[in-house]
Amino acid sequence: MISVVILGAGNVATHLFKAFNKTEKVSVVQWYNRSIDIIKPYKNEIDTIDDLTQLKDADLYILAVSDDAIKSLSSQLPFENRLVVHTSGAAGIYDIDKKHKRGVFYPLQTFSKTAPIDFSNVPICIEALENQDYQVLKKLAKTVGSPTKKVNTDQRKVLHLAAVFVNNFTNQLYRVAHEITESEGAEFDLLKPLILETAKKAQDVSPYMAQTGPAKRNDKKTLKKHLKLLQDQHHKDIYNLLTTSIQRTHGRKKL
Amino acid sequence: MISVVILGAGNVATHLFKAFNKTEKVSVVQWYNRSIDIIKPYKNEIDTIDDLTQLKDADLYILAVSDDAIKSLSSQLPFENRLVVHTSGAAGIYDIDKKHKRGVFYPLQTFSKTAPIDFSNVPICIEALENQDYQVLKKLAKTVGSPTKKVNTDQRKVLHLAAVFVNNFTNQLYRVAHEITESEGAEFDLLKPLILETAKKAQDVSPYMAQTGPAKRNDKKTLKKHLKLLQDQHHKDIYNLLTTSIQRTHGRKKL
Repeated sequence: MISVVILGAGNVATHLFKAFNKTEKVSVVQWYNRSIDIIKPYKNEIDTIDDLTQLKDADLYILAVSDDAIKSLSSQLPFENRLVVHTSGAAGIYDIDKKHKRGVFYPLQTFSKTAPIDFSNVPICIEALENQDYQVLKKLAKTVGSPTKKVNTDQRKVLHLAAVFVNNFTNQLYRVAHEITESEGAEFDLLKPLILETAKKAQDVSPYMAQTGPAKRNDKKTLKKHLKLLQDQHHKDIYNLLTTSIQRTHGRKKL
Repeated sequence: MISVVILGAGNVATHLFKAFNKTEKVSVVQWYNRSIDIIKPYKNEIDTIDDLTQLKDADLYILAVSDDAIKSLSSQLPFENRLVVHTSGAAGIYDIDKKHKRGVFYPLQTFSKTAPIDFSNVPICIEALENQDYQVLKKLAKTVGSPTKKVNTDQRKVLHLAAVFVNNFTNQLYRVAHEITESEGAEFDLLKPLILETAKKAQDVSPYMAQTGPAKRNDKKTLKKHLKLLQDQHHKDIYNLLTTSIQRTHGRKKL
C-alpha cells in the first residue's frame, strides 16, 4: 500500500486522484488545493484541504500544479526529506526544493476534463535521484496499470516538445482540414476513418516508412492543383512548408 | 449480383479486387492491367488480361489507375454506353470519355500494399450523372460494408486535399517528433498512445474544441523554451507556423 497526497486540482491532478482512489493498492491521504472550492465536490471521498500546515504523513506528495508553481509550492511544504514529485513534462527535477527527496512522475498523454482515462494507455515517465524513490514511483504507476520508462530531464523536455507536434499540431491539421472541407460543403466526418487509420499505422510502422502521397512522390501536377484549390494564404503556407518537410525527409530536395 | 471488371493494379485496384472477390454479391469478371506480370499471381482466382479487346460484358468497369491515365484508357475501351467509373479523389467525372455512362467511386482511406483493409472503415465518395448508376455504385459499396456519401467533383477534390493534411502532413509531424526524440535518446514509442488518443478524440470532439497546449494558452514561456530546444531551423519553422495557426484559430492573434 502506497500512501499519497495530491496537490493541485487541474486535469492531471483530478485524473490521478480518481485512478488512485479506485485501486486498493494506493491510499490517497489528502487532496490539497490553494482554492478549496474546486475540490470541494470530492470532500466525501477524501480529506480536502487548502492549508499546507494540515498536511499529513505520506509516502509521497504529488505536485500536479503549473510549472511556475512547483518551485514555491515545494519550498512552502512544512516538512523535509520526504519524497516530493511533480508531474510536468517541461520542468526540471531540480525545480523541486532541495530539502525534499525529489522525483518526477510525468504522464505522457492528453487529459480532458470530462473523458475518463484508461491509465494502461498512459506511459509514465519517471525520474528520481535515488533508486529507492524510483522504485516507489514505478510501483505507484503499476497500481493503475501504466507502463513506465526511466526518462531524464533532457529527454522528458524533448518528449514534451514532441508531444506538441503529435497532439496540438496534428489536431490543428485536423482543424485546417475541417475548414477546407466545410468551405466546399463537404463533410469533415468523411475524414475521420482516415484520421484514425493514420494514427493506427504509426503504432506499427515508422512514420518514415508509412509516408505516401503527392509530396513524397514529387507529383508536381497534384501539388500545383492542391495549392490552387487552397483559398487561404495561411493554408497555402502550411501546405508548402509540410510538403518541403516531407521532401526533405525523403530526399527530394537538397538542404 | 453485380458484375465488375477491374482495370489497374495499384493498391486501390488490388484491395478492391480482394474485397469484391470475397463477397458473393459481386462477380469480378476480369482483371485488366497494361502489364500482365503484376496481376499474374492472381490468375487462378480471376481471368487476368492485358488486351482491351478481350474485355467482357459487365455491369461496371472500375478504372483504378493513375489520374493521368483515366482519359486515354477510358477512350480506348472498345464499347460504349456502359457504366465506367474511376477511383480518384483529384480527377473530375468528365475525365472519363463521354461515350460511357460515367461515375466516380472514390475510397477515402489510406491503402498500404500489405496490410489488409476493413472496408467498413472506408467511406466511398460516389458521383454519377444518372440516378440509376448512382444506385449501382451505392449497392456495390454496400457489398463490402462501406458507408457511402454522394460527393460532387468539387467536394471530392477538397476532400482529397484535406486528406493530405490529415494523413501525409500528420504523418510528417510524427516523423518530426521521431527526429526530435531520437536526437536526445528519448523513445518515440512513448508517444504512440498519445498519437492514437489524439486521433480518437477527433472522432467525437471537433478539432476546435479538442485543442489544448501552450499555443492555445499563449503560454509564452513554454513557447520560448520549446523553440530554444529545437536544434533544426526547419523544425523551428514548423513550430512557429503551426503555433501561429492555432493562435489564429483561437483568436490569439489578429490576421
